[in-house]
Amino acid sequence: MYTSNQVVAAPVTVGRRHLAATSGRVTSVLVNAGNANCATGQTGIEDCHRSCVAVADAFGCVFDEIFPSSTGIIGVPLPLDKLVAAVPNAVLALGDQIEDAEGFARAIMTTDTRLKTAQESFVVDGRAVNLFGCAKGAGMIGPQLVPHATMLAYVFTDLQASPAELQQLLEPAVDASFNNISIDGDMSTNDTVLLLASGRSGVPLALAAEKFAQALHRICGSLAHAIVDDGEGVTHVVTLSIVGAETHDDAKAIARTIASSPLCKTAWSSADPNWGRLLAAAGRAGVAFNPADVLITIAGLPVFSCGQRAPEFDEAATHAAMSEREYIIRMQIGSGPGHTEFITCDLTHEYVAINADYST
Amino acid sequence: MYTSNQVVAAPVTVGRRHLAATSGRVTSVLVNAGNANCATGQTGIEDCHRSCVAVADAFGCVFDEIFPSSTGIIGVPLPLDKLVAAVPNAVLALGDQIEDAEGFARAIMTTDTRLKTAQESFVVDGRAVNLFGCAKGAGMIGPQLVPHATMLAYVFTDLQASPAELQQLLEPAVDASFNNISIDGDMSTNDTVLLLASGRSGVPLALAAEKFAQALHRICGSLAHAIVDDGEGVTHVVTLSIVGAETHDDAKAIARTIASSPLCKTAWSSADPNWGRLLAAAGRAGVAFNPADVLITIAGLPVFSCGQRAPEFDEAATHAAMSEREYIIRMQIGSGPGHTEFITCDLTHEYVAINADYST
Repeated sequence: MYTSNQVVAAPVTVGRRHLAATSGRVTSVLVNAGNANCATGQTGIEDCHRSCVAVADAFGCVFDEIFPSSTGIIGVPLPLDKLVAAVPNAVLALGDQIEDAEGFARAIMTTDTRLKTAQESFVVDGRAVNLFGCAKGAGMIGPQLVPHATMLAYVFTDLQASPAELQQLLEPAVDASFNNISIDGDMSTNDTVLLLASGRSGVPLALAAEKFAQALHRICGSLAHAIVDDGEGVTHVVTLSIVGAETHDDAKAIARTIASSPLCKTAWSSADPNWGRLLAAAGRAGVAFNPADVLITIAGLPVFSCGQRAPEFDEAATHAAMSEREYIIRMQIGSGPGHTEFITCDLTHEYVAINADYST
Repeated sequence: MYTSNQVVAAPVTVGRRHLAATSGRVTSVLVNAGNANCATGQTGIEDCHRSCVAVADAFGCVFDEIFPSSTGIIGVPLPLDKLVAAVPNAVLALGDQIEDAEGFARAIMTTDTRLKTAQESFVVDGRAVNLFGCAKGAGMIGPQLVPHATMLAYVFTDLQASPAELQQLLEPAVDASFNNISIDGDMSTNDTVLLLASGRSGVPLALAAEKFAQALHRICGSLAHAIVDDGEGVTHVVTLSIVGAETHDDAKAIARTIASSPLCKTAWSSADPNWGRLLAAAGRAGVAFNPADVLITIAGLPVFSCGQRAPEFDEAATHAAMSEREYIIRMQIGSGPGHTEFITCDLTHEYVAINADYST
């Protein structure tokens, strides 16, 4: 699954073609960090091709079995020579231990400060099925991935499943995880989530469909949370639980608007129980509702009900609850069936510092 | 014209009723700063009524000829006693000099650091027609005002015109000015633009329609620019000139997305010519376009063309141009007729500092 941005990086274009050409067969994943190879024109496409050819040569496979990803600055030509020259050492560094998988996860980090990995295993008829996932991303995070997504996430499993089956499994897992997070709301041109299955467990999907789907949801959920938790300058992780909307889309629109509101995000940075900003942001989400029907709690503490400040509102207690690193803001919009859980974060001095000086 | 937020403050509800009841006749404008009287329930409505009654008593008019506005924190009961007690002194302070008008403009400021006023005069058949406008607002600025808008703006004129005529004149002027600015993208619950005409010039609209419309556009444009220029923590004012889109709405959607992008806004704060962020933000605006057709210039300097970094791109010169307090970013999206001019600003440490500590 790739970004739905109108502007996509060269590796996204090339990766799509490769998956189409091989019907989803991937031998190697080739990722570089530091340069997005986006807005680099036809040269960028050719550079991406050449990097895939270099890796295919090293592994003795065809070049369209290489799945490319890039993350970093937009609009600067890919330093192809440097990348190609590094391939032999990258090949030598490969291994089948967990340390090796973590080495991959570490190598793709940019402004990330922590390694983001997740693992699951379950047993079917005496045979273990394993999943390992890793992700990078700390800024320009507001993914909206569509099936055919600079957050990069890779999930590897030894389940036996076809590319079409894997795609069907991946979409709901991504929708409930990576598509429901936002750090700065800035959707990247390079977002990608890739699910690869080697089949080496000998366990076919049919024997493990439900267990696998659940494990995949947990892996994606864990990685998505880890991305926000490691977001640029983040000091508070806030889960927006929007319930009672007419539709899920309405609930998501409200969550996304609050998650993108500089006023809400700066208030969270100082544990400021300024719930009026939540209400004002919800009110500009393009969703019709009656403020008199709205109930808001922060970390379980009532702050707004019946069209005004809740009688039980306790500013000191709410401030204390918001001083925790992580808490839930629950907003009941009405009595409809629409709901969502959306993970986001505060906006801090550190975010400004990181992003005011990224390219120069 | 009022905010289109789903959540509106008590004075917006009451002001609408008053204008409807009097068919647009206003004797006095009553504004308090520091408390938005929003999300205050029925008590908030009643408090607003009582404040209007107190002012009507002082002026010997009926209470629905009083036009109320509030700006400040949301969700805190209006300190009505304090407000009513201040009315006699406010009445004593009234006058008909420009200093008095500026006194009004100063009294309604909150996080504003500068007085925002604009004046125009023109002569028709030997008679002068005057316009005086003033505005406040520095944060929670992303107005989308609809006819029936915590930016507050008041324009006073001595033209002779009916409320319906004034409404017709105000809408295009607001659309081209206040509705085309954004500081943080957070639409307020209290935004209001009011145009009042006393008729005292003796000049009927029919004799001055074009001159008046032009003067009104300049007044609104000047105040809208002044709001961004005095925006919370602003160090750079950026005009986004989006041209060549299919429709004006498409152009506006792209401008608004760039203006709300934390990555674009932090880059502007350090004069960072990271044009990739402009392109990525445009790409998530919900508007279809071909990146290969896009041309971007910053302060007239080419940065992106033909799908890649412009050959003429000069990082040092672009950085120098962006070090000016004010400049234009022009983005040609294609060859359509849609265009817009949108005024916005950078996102700085100071913005975070101001808004992290507003309520507590």
